[in-house]
Amino acid sequence: MNTMRWLEEGCLELLDQSKLPLEVTYLNCRDHFDVAAAIKRLAVRGAPAIGAAAAYGLVLGAMKIEVYHKEAFIAGVESIARELTATRPTAVNLRWAMDRLLKKLRSTATEDINELRAVLLAEANLIYREDITNNRKLGAYGQALIPVGARILTHCNAGALATAGYGTALGVIRAAHEAGKKISVYADETRPLLQGARLTTWEMLHARIPVTLITDNMAGYLMASGKVDLVIVGADRITANGDVANKIGTYSLAVLAQVHNLPFYVAAPLSTVDLDLASGEEIPIEERESVEVTHLDGRPVAPAGVKVWNPAFDVTPNRLITAIITERGVIRRPYLKNMQEVMSI
Amino acid sequence: MNTMRWLEEGCLELLDQSKLPLEVTYLNCRDHFDVAAAIKRLAVRGAPAIGAAAAYGLVLGAMKIEVYHKEAFIAGVESIARELTATRPTAVNLRWAMDRLLKKLRSTATEDINELRAVLLAEANLIYREDITNNRKLGAYGQALIPVGARILTHCNAGALATAGYGTALGVIRAAHEAGKKISVYADETRPLLQGARLTTWEMLHARIPVTLITDNMAGYLMASGKVDLVIVGADRITANGDVANKIGTYSLAVLAQVHNLPFYVAAPLSTVDLDLASGEEIPIEERESVEVTHLDGRPVAPAGVKVWNPAFDVTPNRLITAIITERGVIRRPYLKNMQEVMSI
Repeated sequence: MNTMRWLEEGCLELLDQSKLPLEVTYLNCRDHFDVAAAIKRLAVRGAPAIGAAAAYGLVLGAMKIEVYHKEAFIAGVESIARELTATRPTAVNLRWAMDRLLKKLRSTATEDINELRAVLLAEANLIYREDITNNRKLGAYGQALIPVGARILTHCNAGALATAGYGTALGVIRAAHEAGKKISVYADETRPLLQGARLTTWEMLHARIPVTLITDNMAGYLMASGKVDLVIVGADRITANGDVANKIGTYSLAVLAQVHNLPFYVAAPLSTVDLDLASGEEIPIEERESVEVTHLDGRPVAPAGVKVWNPAFDVTPNRLITAIITERGVIRRPYLKNMQEVMSI
Repeated sequence: MNTMRWLEEGCLELLDQSKLPLEVTYLNCRDHFDVAAAIKRLAVRGAPAIGAAAAYGLVLGAMKIEVYHKEAFIAGVESIARELTATRPTAVNLRWAMDRLLKKLRSTATEDINELRAVLLAEANLIYREDITNNRKLGAYGQALIPVGARILTHCNAGALATAGYGTALGVIRAAHEAGKKISVYADETRPLLQGARLTTWEMLHARIPVTLITDNMAGYLMASGKVDLVIVGADRITANGDVANKIGTYSLAVLAQVHNLPFYVAAPLSTVDLDLASGEEIPIEERESVEVTHLDGRPVAPAGVKVWNPAFDVTPNRLITAIITERGVIRRPYLKNMQEVMSI
């Protein structure tokens, strides 16, 4: 089961995550509009996964640009990159992937448009493959932090489905499981879109890792009851000081973990780090439609017309984070210094 | 709109809260089995409301006891009271109502079974009417604590629907609104059964009190964003030391409120206080079926067979509670002393 797959005829096949776990269906994206639409409606979601999908989206867009000159081609690619970047504001991996492809494009000497297209595809493939490799690396670093028999709480889905494969937070969990550590997992269901209930439990069941589903509001009582040893989540954007934007509810978990003296880990590839932003206050937080909260499967669960606040992410300040697990090792306080050091390797 | 209504022909009409807000339908309970079933499947819910409903359930049961002697009648009533008490373990109001009716029965001099039945009905009516009066009284005490323009977060439904009428936490909110304080409300949707989304928003819309719906996991970010001034919730059982059992998620909110320096109030009638228990650790916490978490409206939202932890309540320790608002005034620390004082008035 792959989150996405590049088909050589010029098509990005995406697993439609909005249908999981009830239906396993695929979307065939043939241009960047298809990919943008899939990202917007969360058929593909998770910061690293939307980075890789957008990279292929840019390749698809570049295939349709009918110009003879390199400059016009680059201008066209830039315009498509802007459109893809605008689909979702919080996860920085999207912009990171676009910047990386554009940089590659600009630094390629050839004037041949078809060769430039091939360069873009090669770079998108590299982003995709590197993401899996990086997840395995951060999984190995992270699993060293997990005690034998640990009972681990996670939020949303930072798994194979949120990445090109293997996963970030779930990558660490997979690596600990593969190391024979006899871990078990509590999965927050993660309202409103239930990525924990729908995706994380599904991944854990497939990997034969013991998993128990809870509603988000049970996490505090779970901790107070001594049923959990540590928390690990993914990230959508990490700022220079180590503040972390992640799925709404992450901040509450981090506060609760600190009050209960539990380690709170963030697992993310360095493509999630945005050194341009000094702190989490600068991260744009996407607010999504109220229908996500008021309806389930198209059916209302609240009175018609009720006002809703629906931020898709929140920001967890660095002081609540025990460590950030990356493909280049585990970063600890002071984050500002240590993150820059790791990024400059 | 009444939560329940006694019909003189010997029938308890219950608003079926499991169908709200989409359908307004009523159940006619003609014996105590009907009432027990309605309590179990949460057609009627909320500690004070199930106390009053069970009182009428006992009256209905007593109507069907065909015996000639007072002792046999009392034994029959006691047996039915045990059945009704067993429907839900956490809210103490159920047991409180049964104890009160049995005490009244035992202290009534007449040997006439029909007169005894009438005494039970009169006492049930008293419980019902007193609950509304008490809510208005605690509302008045509580609203004095609410600043003008306060933005109030509440959890689950501690409203007219959770009581005989007016409400506890929502009673305070109603009283503050009626006092012209220009308050507004954030309602946690309250998974798994969405009493906040379905019932609290509905009550607030009917009362024309501004309300915004959020998912439970947004509460921490709401507080960190400075969008809320205080938290107020109801209670299902309060122990002698002021620990509070209430809907799952209450504990997380109380921790978050303390971390963000926000007052955390509990509003409940004294029928919710259980002086027999020294602390919250002794409160039995009901665990409900996994289907409440894995399914919505009968449709699955999680993979088949996934393990679930589904406690219906949690316990908030007294140290996290700013004050307990009752019909005899606002109780503050030290709760052990002050609660006993108020209870002995």
